[in-house]
Amino acid sequence: MKARVHVMLKNGVLDPQGEAIRHALGSMGFDGVEGVRQGKVIELDLADGTSEEQVAQMCERLLANTVIESYRIEM
Amino acid sequence: MKARVHVMLKNGVLDPQGEAIRHALGSMGFDGVEGVRQGKVIELDLADGTSEEQVAQMCERLLANTVIESYRIEM
Repeated sequence: MKARVHVMLKNGVLDPQGEAIRHALGSMGFDGVEGVRQGKVIELDLADGTSEEQVAQMCERLLANTVIESYRIEM
Repeated sequence: MKARVHVMLKNGVLDPQGEAIRHALGSMGFDGVEGVRQGKVIELDLADGTSEEQVAQMCERLLANTVIESYRIEM
């Protein structure tokens, strides 16, 4: 089975990488890009029967830094 | 309006970062993690009326390295 975890910086946390992308898109002539946030997506290939609770544990302990990042699990 | 772009390494391209996560999860006692791939997710805040075609152009020209990465757009 597959699970997908999205890890994004929380609102209010500065995202210099996203800001760099926004700036680059603007200077390439793409108008109308008002904001960019970059995050991570982690695709896990799991043994059958792995619970969402276990994936949440993985996020809390390794995949996300919950001080500054939020995560979302899709299974 | 919002658009979300997922950028993943293509199948067959080695993903040492994903492999490091898989190894770390295993050594933390999470069994049954058979594979991990890490990619990027980019959330764009766009002016109304921006077309998916324009976002695809952004991906081709900046957001993804299409030699080794594939991208998927959600609008």
